[in-house]
Amino acid sequence: MQAIAGPFLLYLGDKTNPLDIKTSRGLALFRPGECVGELSLGGGLSLGLPQMDPAQAAAAGARTLVLGIATSGGRLEETMIATILAALDAGLDVASGLHQHLADDPRIRERAAATGGRLIDIRIAAKGLAVGNGKPRAGNRLLTVGTDCAVGKMFTSLHLTQALNAKGMSARFRATGQTGVMIAGEGVVIDSVIADFISGAAEALSPAREDEVWDVIEGQGSLFNPSFAGVSLGLLHGAQPRALVLCHDPSRPHMRGLPHFPVPDLKACLEENLRCARLTSPDVAAVGVSINGSQMAPDEVANLCARIEDDLGLPCVDPVITGMEPIVERIAQLP
Amino acid sequence: MQAIAGPFLLYLGDKTNPLDIKTSRGLALFRPGECVGELSLGGGLSLGLPQMDPAQAAAAGARTLVLGIATSGGRLEETMIATILAALDAGLDVASGLHQHLADDPRIRERAAATGGRLIDIRIAAKGLAVGNGKPRAGNRLLTVGTDCAVGKMFTSLHLTQALNAKGMSARFRATGQTGVMIAGEGVVIDSVIADFISGAAEALSPAREDEVWDVIEGQGSLFNPSFAGVSLGLLHGAQPRALVLCHDPSRPHMRGLPHFPVPDLKACLEENLRCARLTSPDVAAVGVSINGSQMAPDEVANLCARIEDDLGLPCVDPVITGMEPIVERIAQLP
Repeated sequence: MQAIAGPFLLYLGDKTNPLDIKTSRGLALFRPGECVGELSLGGGLSLGLPQMDPAQAAAAGARTLVLGIATSGGRLEETMIATILAALDAGLDVASGLHQHLADDPRIRERAAATGGRLIDIRIAAKGLAVGNGKPRAGNRLLTVGTDCAVGKMFTSLHLTQALNAKGMSARFRATGQTGVMIAGEGVVIDSVIADFISGAAEALSPAREDEVWDVIEGQGSLFNPSFAGVSLGLLHGAQPRALVLCHDPSRPHMRGLPHFPVPDLKACLEENLRCARLTSPDVAAVGVSINGSQMAPDEVANLCARIEDDLGLPCVDPVITGMEPIVERIAQLP
Repeated sequence: MQAIAGPFLLYLGDKTNPLDIKTSRGLALFRPGECVGELSLGGGLSLGLPQMDPAQAAAAGARTLVLGIATSGGRLEETMIATILAALDAGLDVASGLHQHLADDPRIRERAAATGGRLIDIRIAAKGLAVGNGKPRAGNRLLTVGTDCAVGKMFTSLHLTQALNAKGMSARFRATGQTGVMIAGEGVVIDSVIADFISGAAEALSPAREDEVWDVIEGQGSLFNPSFAGVSLGLLHGAQPRALVLCHDPSRPHMRGLPHFPVPDLKACLEENLRCARLTSPDVAAVGVSINGSQMAPDEVANLCARIEDDLGLPCVDPVITGMEPIVERIAQLP
């Protein structure tokens, strides 16, 4: 993957659902020093950065417009085009996490050729991958799994990595999604690999290691999401995790984008993930639950965590409100 | 996908394992009138066709060299190159089911440009796919699932389709693998789609229908194969099958290519497939087991089928030795 040059102008488009600006938000949260501004087309969302157009951002030192939003099917949207062309005209590169590639649109392709701006697609199918083989490999690996997409698996993985390092237990974040890859500057976008290579990509992302470092692998999708469960399963097998953290958004009324699918029960979801994980990691253990309490009052979060702890016998945290330490402690106690 | 023009010269290379010439064999079995010859480099395998080099095949009317073999990771092999170049020189097109594309090799690319021969890669990631949504859709769909890869899912699907039609119950074969797609001249190679679109591809392959026609969908991989289970699960969810047929090769000592992974127990495998299928098809039912008895004596096949029928309460067949009728009858009895 080409390196993306900061500083960044973060595109929010006309999105109204906060889940749809996940990548822009991820950069604002985890690479704050490199985000100079945001560009909204009036959807009402903000990351708290100065509103800028591309020319203003370039004047402020920005190097790249980041299309950090989700769209239907990951396709380019007509409303984006003017901003993309203006960014190229202002001398910026354009980075995108969409499935449809920037150069697919002739207007973008030709303008980039004229201005010399780089078009960087994060969701490129990685080349040179091998098929997964499931062989036991050394190393401490933890995978975040979820009741659905966009429940905090990446957020939890990043916070857990920081918390493990703070405690003196070395950890590395292994990005598997477009946002994680943009934040880390490395990784493999698992949902964009050719289907036969999903588990192989996960194995390549977290190869055998002989030290004590924890590879904290960002999960994808959910075994209960009929759109993406195949990706989740391939990643689960290839990651061959020693430990799982189950992530959940208690405010989710149904599976994202699928009003006819209920969110699974936490215990059932955890059991399913453990069962499937045992195919390649017979000794896998759950070490905690991480909830996204951002839509709840802190005492509601505390009550819910207490109930989940009783119910599942595992530490339950919110990365921001409670911190990750209870899960770090459970990890430290693994045999 | 570009149409492949018969007649065909079937490439066997230096392969020694019969499983590795599956695509060439599939064409020989299911499109026999269009296969003029085979080309072996001395591995000892044969499909019983005349041995020919490309010039001889062209003289016999062939239009396409088919690289109908499996290779490690689906990559081009050096031993193939001379044959491919000779085929192009003889005025043939070249069709390939490998993951690595023909034009990736500059020798092949340049020779094809010089001769005007077409380079046809079956394993192209299908474009324009939507993400799967799991919504209930009308229509009779049957999916073959397996204890492993290469156990007879395609073979069973083709024979079952023929048997249903022979009985007056209309059926259509829905190809999901490179061999099936070459045989049918249509379909989607599921293992080559971008990971996020696996279940969407399966939905697109078998859209809603209001008639009584059975879509017999070729399964892929196995939920118990750590290399490919993600593909299997995405296909299972997207196919949303009313009925499942479990396919098995009793002579398989371990999962293919994975000596450290045992072949799953039939009952456990069937239960797992039914459980996972219920996410999008709550009323799914198993209608039979199909074994590959080609390495067994007929009475051994009969004994094994009887034991499996007792054990699972389902008809058990070998498509060649017993025929598919017991499964056709069970399908006819579905409510």
